[in-house]
Amino acid sequence: MFAEAEADPILSKDEFKALEARLRVALLNAQYERLRQADKTLLIVVAGIDGAGKGATINLLNEWMDPRHIRTLAYGPREGDELERPPLWRYWRDLPPKGSTGIVFGSWYTPLVIEAARKKPNADAIEAHSAAIMRFETMLAAEGVQIIKLWFHLSAKAQKTRAQRLLANPDTAWQVSPVDMKVNKRFDRIRAGAQVVLNHTDCGHAPWVVIPSADENMRAARTAEAVLGALRRRGVPRLPPAFVAHSSTTRIVDRLGKLDYDAKVDKEDYETELGLLQGRLARAARSDKFRNRSLILVFEGQDAAGKGGAIRRVTHALDIRQVDITPISAPTTEELARPYLWRFWRCIPSHGRIGIFDRSWYGRVLVERVEKLIPPARWRRAYAEINDFEEQLAASGALVLKFWLAVTPDEQLKRFHEREKSPFKNFKITPDDWRNRDKWKEYAAAANEMMTRTDVAHAPWHLVSANDKRYARLQVLRHIVDAMEIQL
Amino acid sequence: MFAEAEADPILSKDEFKALEARLRVALLNAQYERLRQADKTLLIVVAGIDGAGKGATINLLNEWMDPRHIRTLAYGPREGDELERPPLWRYWRDLPPKGSTGIVFGSWYTPLVIEAARKKPNADAIEAHSAAIMRFETMLAAEGVQIIKLWFHLSAKAQKTRAQRLLANPDTAWQVSPVDMKVNKRFDRIRAGAQVVLNHTDCGHAPWVVIPSADENMRAARTAEAVLGALRRRGVPRLPPAFVAHSSTTRIVDRLGKLDYDAKVDKEDYETELGLLQGRLARAARSDKFRNRSLILVFEGQDAAGKGGAIRRVTHALDIRQVDITPISAPTTEELARPYLWRFWRCIPSHGRIGIFDRSWYGRVLVERVEKLIPPARWRRAYAEINDFEEQLAASGALVLKFWLAVTPDEQLKRFHEREKSPFKNFKITPDDWRNRDKWKEYAAAANEMMTRTDVAHAPWHLVSANDKRYARLQVLRHIVDAMEIQL
Repeated sequence: MFAEAEADPILSKDEFKALEARLRVALLNAQYERLRQADKTLLIVVAGIDGAGKGATINLLNEWMDPRHIRTLAYGPREGDELERPPLWRYWRDLPPKGSTGIVFGSWYTPLVIEAARKKPNADAIEAHSAAIMRFETMLAAEGVQIIKLWFHLSAKAQKTRAQRLLANPDTAWQVSPVDMKVNKRFDRIRAGAQVVLNHTDCGHAPWVVIPSADENMRAARTAEAVLGALRRRGVPRLPPAFVAHSSTTRIVDRLGKLDYDAKVDKEDYETELGLLQGRLARAARSDKFRNRSLILVFEGQDAAGKGGAIRRVTHALDIRQVDITPISAPTTEELARPYLWRFWRCIPSHGRIGIFDRSWYGRVLVERVEKLIPPARWRRAYAEINDFEEQLAASGALVLKFWLAVTPDEQLKRFHEREKSPFKNFKITPDDWRNRDKWKEYAAAANEMMTRTDVAHAPWHLVSANDKRYARLQVLRHIVDAMEIQL
Repeated sequence: MFAEAEADPILSKDEFKALEARLRVALLNAQYERLRQADKTLLIVVAGIDGAGKGATINLLNEWMDPRHIRTLAYGPREGDELERPPLWRYWRDLPPKGSTGIVFGSWYTPLVIEAARKKPNADAIEAHSAAIMRFETMLAAEGVQIIKLWFHLSAKAQKTRAQRLLANPDTAWQVSPVDMKVNKRFDRIRAGAQVVLNHTDCGHAPWVVIPSADENMRAARTAEAVLGALRRRGVPRLPPAFVAHSSTTRIVDRLGKLDYDAKVDKEDYETELGLLQGRLARAARSDKFRNRSLILVFEGQDAAGKGGAIRRVTHALDIRQVDITPISAPTTEELARPYLWRFWRCIPSHGRIGIFDRSWYGRVLVERVEKLIPPARWRRAYAEINDFEEQLAASGALVLKFWLAVTPDEQLKRFHEREKSPFKNFKITPDDWRNRDKWKEYAAAANEMMTRTDVAHAPWHLVSANDKRYARLQVLRHIVDAMEIQL
């Protein structure tokens, strides 16, 4: 795998000059063509032996291409806010829009390479980490983010020589870091680790390219060729089958059909119980333990099922300064230029905070499915993508609770008519609401399938009978309080 | 001013009940009406005596209104990234979109109130700080952000009683902070300071409202009434004359007309000089002193004047990991929902970093003026707003340099034709470019006025003759290097 790179091949000045002129024109051309299409983002992951000239090469790439449409994203160790979110959060946050190019230093491969290059690497950890990366990259690829991964490589001898040459000149000495000087001693281990990583994570839709880096002409030319190849690749990548394939034979449970819609609470019991639950919620949210956790509440349900009212009863018990409520409606242009989960990644609460979503990422398998906004393959894949997303949230310390507030068609109709009559609610009822009502069965089928496929222990669905608003509000509070008291 | 509040008026339970029902309906109604219009943001600034029940009241407001469209923005002391930007940066960053409401705790008044409540307040500092706040609020008001400021007040005795009562109950003790306990001792000084602040910063478009806070019913009702009044206020506020009025008699200098467009450099001199300047730039950007500064470069100029090429020559000398290039085109929907400077505030570099703007906030007084996208009053006001913005940038440690690359009409025409013929540049020429060319004189007049009104010592304009690309690139580099070497 590294044989060619470790032979330290060189490219003569003349050969390079000829190549350079051609590559520059081609790169610019390909970059502008992608800008015009604006249907894909290109992420260039930069990795490799320290001191192989990664930084210098990327500078050159910025010079050859139009740097106004390239974002260089450089990451060090996770710090501050980042520690309170899943490790991939920073990469989601900074994801460039379609049409543009991102160059990633300190990517999601850094911890994996470090682990693989240890004296006694943990094979299980490497396996699990590689699988998580593959899920991430597969999802990005499926959602229009193309990935190419460059591994800059050279022989141990050439690495040493290069560092010494750069150090000798005050104009280039800054390019050499203390880490570069240590590489030589551990060269064999790093190479062995790299081999494991590349083997585990090379795939058609996010390939690794080894760049021979001893000679700067060769390094520049091969980098440019790799990027050019990626820029020119058109069409949808051939993806592996959904990364956590859900069995198509799973029986979809008709949870909505089996629900007891007559559940009720009378007013007096309601007032008493509400106060008690809100008191418990207030204490849980202000407990010391919650400072290292976060709470994510997802509210879904039919139109007029009472999501807003339930949310208000929850926030009443909270210090509103620790709450972010995100109402989800049609995506903005910025959001449309990224994978569908991007807008939600942006809103993940930090520790000690509560994020409430009034509708959510489940729109993917509800409205987008029923209204046929996306082809079936995309929403079928989404169950696994969403499970993966929520698993990362839970692993980072979030309690994730999901509520479906369920009403019967008759009750909804009654509420629609009430809204039409109410002087301050009639604007809440739109032609869309009536149209959605016509597709009651399709929405119910989608909701049932969603609850079957995404009801997981670390992010459970609570199906709540909401024909009686009081009952629904108490149920929601009870589930939240129970989960917090048990898990904190 | 505080006489009524310090009388600690109360509202009986019955009076409150009747009022509450009416206020809740009216608040929701007014909130939804604004959401529908989506033409203004409402910011509610929350300030006042510590321990007056601000937090509890805002929670109530969230419960009475639809909390999904209210963002509660709570700030403590500036920290981390915030210290590397102007003090107002955090408020710009989090500004909610039009149609929604933001409630601000720890607002831009906090440092001013602290200063004013000191034993020996610095009158000049208070004067200057108040003026800066007025400029900020006036600008927001002019751009569709309505502001109402609530000062929660009560007598010293009532403040003490309230804290003791809350502390006595474990369910409410969390509401009392150590600061609340200290207020009583310094009550007179805080009141005197508040009086100064309110006097200096009360104005028709961003009024202060004193909320009597000893009694929770009174406090809730008066807060709700104040917010309701603000929500219902329609139309454009009556603004004071532009806050830093520029003299209409200032003679606009025809800098573009007087420029020597024949300036040239031959190829050999260019290569030598380019290398030298890039070396100096490389050293300056990597110097220790630059770690506490940032660099903001603005590029403007006629179409095809060579902005992209000049930017590339600059970035060549930089570690691309420390650079953010922001190309400015038509605003997105998220950007249109905020004042025009918002999108630029979001892109201010942190210390040690370089932000390059390919076109910029000057679009306000160029394209938006010439294409009549906004009424004249708005772009006339923009000169002062922009000067204020850049002054804040400079004060926070940024070097701000602005370049106008100037070509003659003939040279532009030649380049347009070249672009049309070039296989990889022809997409760069659009019908817009030809239309802009027809308005050459209007653009030149706008550019001349812009350079006259916004050429300030802390953010100078450099007008660069760009008929010869080599000459222009060297000039740009020279100005940057000179500024960095002198100021670092």
